[in-house]
Amino acid sequence: MFRTMSAELPHATPGSPVRLQGWVHRRRELATVSFLVVRDRTGLAQVVVKDGADVPPEETTVEVVGLATANPQAPGGIEVTDPVITALTEPAATPPVELWRPTMNASLPTLLDHAPVTWRHPAQRAKWELAAASLRGFRGTLDAAGFTEIQTPKFVASATESGANVFQVDYFGRPAYLAQSPQFYKQQMVGVFERVYEVGPVFRAEPHDTVRHLAEYVSLDAELGFIEDHRDVLRVLREVLAGMVAAIHEYAAPAVALTGARVPVVPEEIPVIHFRDALALVGAAADELDLAPEHERALGAWALTEHGSDFLAVEGYPMAKRPFYTHPWSRQARPTEEDRWSNSFDLLFRGLELVTGGQRLHRPSAYDEAIRARGEDPADYASYLQAFEHGMPPHGGFAIGLERWTARLVEAANVREVTLFPRDLHRLTP
Amino acid sequence: MFRTMSAELPHATPGSPVRLQGWVHRRRELATVSFLVVRDRTGLAQVVVKDGADVPPEETTVEVVGLATANPQAPGGIEVTDPVITALTEPAATPPVELWRPTMNASLPTLLDHAPVTWRHPAQRAKWELAAASLRGFRGTLDAAGFTEIQTPKFVASATESGANVFQVDYFGRPAYLAQSPQFYKQQMVGVFERVYEVGPVFRAEPHDTVRHLAEYVSLDAELGFIEDHRDVLRVLREVLAGMVAAIHEYAAPAVALTGARVPVVPEEIPVIHFRDALALVGAAADELDLAPEHERALGAWALTEHGSDFLAVEGYPMAKRPFYTHPWSRQARPTEEDRWSNSFDLLFRGLELVTGGQRLHRPSAYDEAIRARGEDPADYASYLQAFEHGMPPHGGFAIGLERWTARLVEAANVREVTLFPRDLHRLTP
Repeated sequence: MFRTMSAELPHATPGSPVRLQGWVHRRRELATVSFLVVRDRTGLAQVVVKDGADVPPEETTVEVVGLATANPQAPGGIEVTDPVITALTEPAATPPVELWRPTMNASLPTLLDHAPVTWRHPAQRAKWELAAASLRGFRGTLDAAGFTEIQTPKFVASATESGANVFQVDYFGRPAYLAQSPQFYKQQMVGVFERVYEVGPVFRAEPHDTVRHLAEYVSLDAELGFIEDHRDVLRVLREVLAGMVAAIHEYAAPAVALTGARVPVVPEEIPVIHFRDALALVGAAADELDLAPEHERALGAWALTEHGSDFLAVEGYPMAKRPFYTHPWSRQARPTEEDRWSNSFDLLFRGLELVTGGQRLHRPSAYDEAIRARGEDPADYASYLQAFEHGMPPHGGFAIGLERWTARLVEAANVREVTLFPRDLHRLTP
Repeated sequence: MFRTMSAELPHATPGSPVRLQGWVHRRRELATVSFLVVRDRTGLAQVVVKDGADVPPEETTVEVVGLATANPQAPGGIEVTDPVITALTEPAATPPVELWRPTMNASLPTLLDHAPVTWRHPAQRAKWELAAASLRGFRGTLDAAGFTEIQTPKFVASATESGANVFQVDYFGRPAYLAQSPQFYKQQMVGVFERVYEVGPVFRAEPHDTVRHLAEYVSLDAELGFIEDHRDVLRVLREVLAGMVAAIHEYAAPAVALTGARVPVVPEEIPVIHFRDALALVGAAADELDLAPEHERALGAWALTEHGSDFLAVEGYPMAKRPFYTHPWSRQARPTEEDRWSNSFDLLFRGLELVTGGQRLHRPSAYDEAIRARGEDPADYASYLQAFEHGMPPHGGFAIGLERWTARLVEAANVREVTLFPRDLHRLTP
């Protein structure tokens, strides 16, 4: 007999035999009747249990063969009666939290210490379903726009390539480092495919214990060639976000309902403000080089009021705070006063930084100059600079942090709440 | 003016203005006329250059504005005349290999040392396009079958979790290790989502210098619950391979033509042979615990002759050679003689191992026993064993090595030929 998923049960013909498989979600003994609620990947099903029948404890996996029976009070109008219940494993140990309660009443450390079990809670699991649907939307949008998926190495030869806060590995007896981003490699691959994306782990030896930083997170990277400037990058980013939102609605509607996620509307055009104007707007000093969190929040509120948008791009961040490969503001042959600004942006989502992006340098002479200006030796970047010496187009790209995106959707205070197995300064298990 | 991609040029109206962007693929000076061939991500376009015009060297990125002009001798019947050619960067350095030649005449070290440039060759780039299409087919098939994509941590706490050949990381002053596979995590997530997959890097401190091993490779992992045995896993694997092949035909047909890839037909049912019978078939001793490469080749040839299949699953590998979480052959309550065999398989593709898969243990008592039998302490696996103590279904899964798959498609002798930036005992750059 084929398996009936709990979501299909409401469509079963009353009186027909059905076979459920899943977890004992809950046992309920009422005065006149006892129920077993079975949980599978599609939802919950109600089974009416005979008096005195032996039902295994919560979380034990079971198979239930019985009859589909109409009952207006059952979820979906159909329950299973006359069940034969077979345990598929030994009686499960009592879970660290009661997974059958609509809301889990557990501290963050409990959630994380028992992740293999606590993720089973329908409302918890739904958070990751939003993430998985987002990944699908990210890739689908870029596939349709002529991007090629790449997979680039996580082992890199030098710490300079990755910057500060880098993890060192014993690589066959010599040091190697874990890539902090696929930045160098995605740029090189623009020379091959013009348009590339990668979804994968990045590693940051982040010594600060904050609600927004992890030692390992999932980065959604894209990079494209033959652009005019960073505004072209922002237009692609807009399409990608719209695709992620559409995928959430298409593939994760039940998860939206379960989590109460506030899925944004992505405006046709994301409003843009120059960094200089952003400083003025929030009343910060004109020589500030970065936006403080309270400034970002104020800008987010402004974007919502002024443009009705959950998103705001702040362009023109000071070159002094951007990586050496960042393209300056001016497209003139000789530098101008405007070149203290960059062709880069941060995208704020509800007042928090979600994405960093922008145009990169593409002329080999510009790289040579930029690296020397930082007191470094271009020879240390030889393998990266190959691509530019052999001809690269104007290009740019962006990176979205998956956990930050999901955290904002469900308004989680801490990115750890939406990370399957977070890694940080203190946590390396489970 | 919008950009015209080279693949669209044959559809341009003769006499209309066009704007190409791409790389100088080749300059050709004939007796009566000079050509510039522009390469973009969709192919090549021919531009007729006026006598004495200045055309930048090969690989320089350019914009060409001119007129679409019918010429039966041009590729696709349309070329660009009266061009205005603008370089988008400085004149490119001469490439290490002539990228315009139909076949690259370069040694493997040259290909790898100059990967950012040599991947630009259309036939080289096409190899990765087969890989990218395969990834799309892998995910699409599993998405449609109710699988959830997961992203699991690459930092793990103990070497036992990962086995031998593990890379050690300096993790905030204490040791951590890089995951050799997402095995433990994908199993735990079966407890949450029932069906999961992950595409990501895995790390093996492989001390041998072979044509089949890398220190980092891309693993396509899937795991599913509520199975009868490993045959259910094999059925899903069959669908996945068929989906990968279909995606190659749908999204990478030009790459198939350029590489001459031998894309297999996946049979409706993949033929299966028991390990014991496989030994007998190839004339190996009955107490052998593994198949030698020449045995795998002989079995591949047999599958082709006997079943007309490029694929053959060898099931029942000796438990002695499988990891501790492997499910034994018998489904009886008490062990039998048959339990020297396992519910696991290797999938041979054209006589080479491509996939390992099988059913895993799911009862906590079975884990306890299996770990103790290897002289280890179950307490060392506590965070993994949580999932089983709290109820897991019978489950299993498989892992496909992306590079091995692509290598077999294009009949590359060495997996490095199809890896964007291979990492091994000796190579950590570019």
